Amino acid sequence: MFKVKVPATSANIGPGFDTLGMALSINNVITFKENKSGVIFEDVEDEYSNENNLIYQSMLKTWEYLNEPKKGVVISVEENIPISRGLGSSAACIIGGILGALTMSERTLSNEEILKIAMSLEGHPDNITPALIGSVTIATTVEDDIEYMKLDIKDQYDFYLFIPPVGISTEESRKVLPETISMKDAVYNVSRAAMLVATLLSGKQEFLTLALGDKLHQQFRSKLIDGYDELIEYMGTLNFLGNFISGAGPAVVGVAERGRYMGELQFKDWRIEKLNIDNEGAKIIR
Amino acid sequence: MFKVKVPATSANIGPGFDTLGMALSINNVITFKENKSGVIFEDVEDEYSNENNLIYQSMLKTWEYLNEPKKGVVISVEENIPISRGLGSSAACIIGGILGALTMSERTLSNEEILKIAMSLEGHPDNITPALIGSVTIATTVEDDIEYMKLDIKDQYDFYLFIPPVGISTEESRKVLPETISMKDAVYNVSRAAMLVATLLSGKQEFLTLALGDKLHQQFRSKLIDGYDELIEYMGTLNFLGNFISGAGPAVVGVAERGRYMGELQFKDWRIEKLNIDNEGAKIIR
Repeated sequence: MFKVKVPATSANIGPGFDTLGMALSINNVITFKENKSGVIFEDVEDEYSNENNLIYQSMLKTWEYLNEPKKGVVISVEENIPISRGLGSSAACIIGGILGALTMSERTLSNEEILKIAMSLEGHPDNITPALIGSVTIATTVEDDIEYMKLDIKDQYDFYLFIPPVGISTEESRKVLPETISMKDAVYNVSRAAMLVATLLSGKQEFLTLALGDKLHQQFRSKLIDGYDELIEYMGTLNFLGNFISGAGPAVVGVAERGRYMGELQFKDWRIEKLNIDNEGAKIIR
Repeated sequence: MFKVKVPATSANIGPGFDTLGMALSINNVITFKENKSGVIFEDVEDEYSNENNLIYQSMLKTWEYLNEPKKGVVISVEENIPISRGLGSSAACIIGGILGALTMSERTLSNEEILKIAMSLEGHPDNITPALIGSVTIATTVEDDIEYMKLDIKDQYDFYLFIPPVGISTEESRKVLPETISMKDAVYNVSRAAMLVATLLSGKQEFLTLALGDKLHQQFRSKLIDGYDELIEYMGTLNFLGNFISGAGPAVVGVAERGRYMGELQFKDWRIEKLNIDNEGAKIIR
């Protein structure tokens, strides 16, 4: 019996569409127990208690990659990452499943190989990379591989997650994006993404607001989020340095100076969580 | 009598189209002498020895901005930056002229104001910013202002400039660019620009080749450069970490590990210069 802890992740971070991602200080903790054969789920919703479960699918994919026989397993999940909110709950299942299968088979793989398996299940590198290695990451795909950098950032912000009661599927959220954009908008995001990386690495907080600018995805995806305009207006009355839609949404992240008192936050029936960056990433606990 | 020294600049730097720029270790040195009235040029080609001269136009623009009377001036130029090669010779004239006018009128302005005047003459922020402040810069326009960051980079590369005998006008080079691009190509450049900044700031040289990738401008502009494909092939046989078209071209920059012996470089009738980053930017010499 062992556990795998995997952090929530917030992909995109404003201008860094399909590129930047950060690991956050809430985790899913998945417990793996050896079983004679097949898969059994404990404390998992009925909907996910079958062979299509993403954790189990990721285990099967890993065994296939390793050319190892699959093992029987009892999986239980302490689920703290909200589902379908743009907080990387799928990436947590995938990374958790891969590490679970590796650990059960007493095998290890490089981060590059783990991410390659994860990519074949997720299709995008920006959640799985920080879920595995923590911190803020820049990730891109080169053919079937993920190339990534883990940023040694100045840890000087608090992240306030505004999580609405209803989720959106990533698929739905991808459909609203245009296939072509203007060169001007591309340059806008190139400059902001460059500035965001420089801001996070240098600690030059005065550039953060500018550096969170985006023209590639948030203007389209925000229309799917009920209450978004009102929320941005509300956040504008407070001392946030900036905000961004987490991943494909609908959760929205407000960025504040570390330790700054933000008042009694309340917005409709949305859940609000104050989080920090998780620097460790996924971890096996024996 | 005083002089203003302004460095050559290389804009774009691969993925950083209209955003990134670096100052290089060759300079134009402009000498300003008071004159009773009007403008006189010494050691300047006939073509540029008139009131339309960009240095003089930049002086007029500065006096207009300051609401100062214009002064008579004798301008001479020690010209080391090749013209129409994508090496920022226009930006050097503009920044030189602004600093010349300020110095003659015993006035100072913030970098932000100097760049605002320069923008009204140049239209793009990516050469004028490093020409003024040196190093590698991220610059973007917000309405009429330039917002910029000067990067405190790890200075670990040599830059080899390959300069063809014939120039291209920036205007011509801008015409070949499409107005719209695919979202995929935009994301490609966002990720590379983010990685390039992280690479330059962290010193993680192993990412440089990947981080110089670009889909926004070089594939179009390279077609205007006679011998480009051959040059890239030639550079591929040598130990360059990567290459990029300097500004709008046609000069091409090869990036090498600092101090690495690159052999006896020769390519057609192109001039080849080994340069480094200029960290100071423009400087007034009395």
